[in-house]
Amino acid sequence: MLIDCGEGTQMQLRRFRLKYSKLDYIFISHLHGDHYLGLIGLLSSFHLARRSNPLTIFGPKGLDEIISTHFRWSNTQLTYSIDFHITTDDGLNLLVNTPQLMVYSFPLRHRLPTTGFLIKEKAGLSNLIKSKLEAEKLPVEAIKSLRKGMDYIGVDGSFYPVREYCYPQEPTRTYAYCSDTIYWPELKEYIAEVDLLYHESTFLDAEKERAELTMHSTAGQAASIAAAASVKKLILGHFSSRYKDLNPMLEEAKPIFENVELSVEGETYQL
Amino acid sequence: MLIDCGEGTQMQLRRFRLKYSKLDYIFISHLHGDHYLGLIGLLSSFHLARRSNPLTIFGPKGLDEIISTHFRWSNTQLTYSIDFHITTDDGLNLLVNTPQLMVYSFPLRHRLPTTGFLIKEKAGLSNLIKSKLEAEKLPVEAIKSLRKGMDYIGVDGSFYPVREYCYPQEPTRTYAYCSDTIYWPELKEYIAEVDLLYHESTFLDAEKERAELTMHSTAGQAASIAAAASVKKLILGHFSSRYKDLNPMLEEAKPIFENVELSVEGETYQL
Repeated sequence: MLIDCGEGTQMQLRRFRLKYSKLDYIFISHLHGDHYLGLIGLLSSFHLARRSNPLTIFGPKGLDEIISTHFRWSNTQLTYSIDFHITTDDGLNLLVNTPQLMVYSFPLRHRLPTTGFLIKEKAGLSNLIKSKLEAEKLPVEAIKSLRKGMDYIGVDGSFYPVREYCYPQEPTRTYAYCSDTIYWPELKEYIAEVDLLYHESTFLDAEKERAELTMHSTAGQAASIAAAASVKKLILGHFSSRYKDLNPMLEEAKPIFENVELSVEGETYQL
Repeated sequence: MLIDCGEGTQMQLRRFRLKYSKLDYIFISHLHGDHYLGLIGLLSSFHLARRSNPLTIFGPKGLDEIISTHFRWSNTQLTYSIDFHITTDDGLNLLVNTPQLMVYSFPLRHRLPTTGFLIKEKAGLSNLIKSKLEAEKLPVEAIKSLRKGMDYIGVDGSFYPVREYCYPQEPTRTYAYCSDTIYWPELKEYIAEVDLLYHESTFLDAEKERAELTMHSTAGQAASIAAAASVKKLILGHFSSRYKDLNPMLEEAKPIFENVELSVEGETYQL
């Protein structure tokens, strides 16, 4: 899954040795150039590499016209199909539902229709405790049920509770991405208690008026949202190029929300 | 002037410290992504930098629709005006005529309508030989005429030949750019005797069939065109990524056309 795709994304994917042939889903938050201008190049490279797997793209109305205009004029019949879905900024919308996870869009407040994205991991199959399995003869139905995380009661009344036959499950993880948005307190409802929040931090509080005018956030505002939403960790990004030193971003955020980091290009953030 | 604008061009311009605010003309040879996908990003950056100078763009039909589709959806009113001109691949066409130079488009043969570009420097004003001026009293009309490179004959029959009163002029220089084209012998008419020819060299002769199929040229074919057109120097480029070692390109071209070089990103080629 790839969220947003600025100019040069395909070069950066190559540089960081990420296999972009494995991409199945692309999510575009809004139609400002720094969030989507690398998309046509990436789609073209899939085509040149003779991709056959379908690709699913979620993005605002207009992105479909932009894509089709390019490929119509370059007379390109893509080697793969694009399954395009229009996103809307009217609430929490389920976009993807796989056995592993769910992806939702939710509204942001920016100069164009813009959405954030929320990824929720699903509980996987539970791991059975081997010694128990070997000691007792469990019916096949009991094993199936336990692996799905459900207690099993046999027709004979025998009872196999998950907490006794399975290892405790890893808690499921959640990630929320907020590309471009003005400070908007209601946002906290959509991202409450996520494990990791990426939030834009274009300016410092000293430029609060400019942030409001351009519908961006300051580091302090991003930290306030993170605190109000009780997220576990915050990553700041989308810094204005006026800031050569980014440490003041951290210094502004930390007193409001302690567990905060600056995003670094090419870095991996483990949940 | 910028000819073609692949994805990441604005990053490369910054990297090589070229002031892109000084750009007045952009020429796009055809609508394959590697030749124009950096254009929207560059135009957006001009906008963000509050450019006010008009920008002139020459490119094939469709590029205007692509540009307007992007800016319509991003709701952008550019801070500068774009003067867009459609190029056609039907012959030699004068695009730009300034006191310093002329730019023409000429046809190439590729999978889409494609043009090359020819830049011809104009002769500047001639420099008068000072000692002559001081020794003789030349009429003002004679001086004007001589500076334009023309002999002058006075009403009294006096004769002031350029070759006697002026330093010899620097020869005017010419550059031709051939982005993507199948081997096409007629091309030589358009690029005859240029000082510098850039010609694509996607493949080696061993892949001649593939070159024909994809409407590209080999290094040997580019050298043949250079020789047939009696150009002074040839630069090869647009190499397929399959070639990790580019020396065979030079080895293939040299026996056919001696004064040949490989293009290197960021390099300056002096005429």
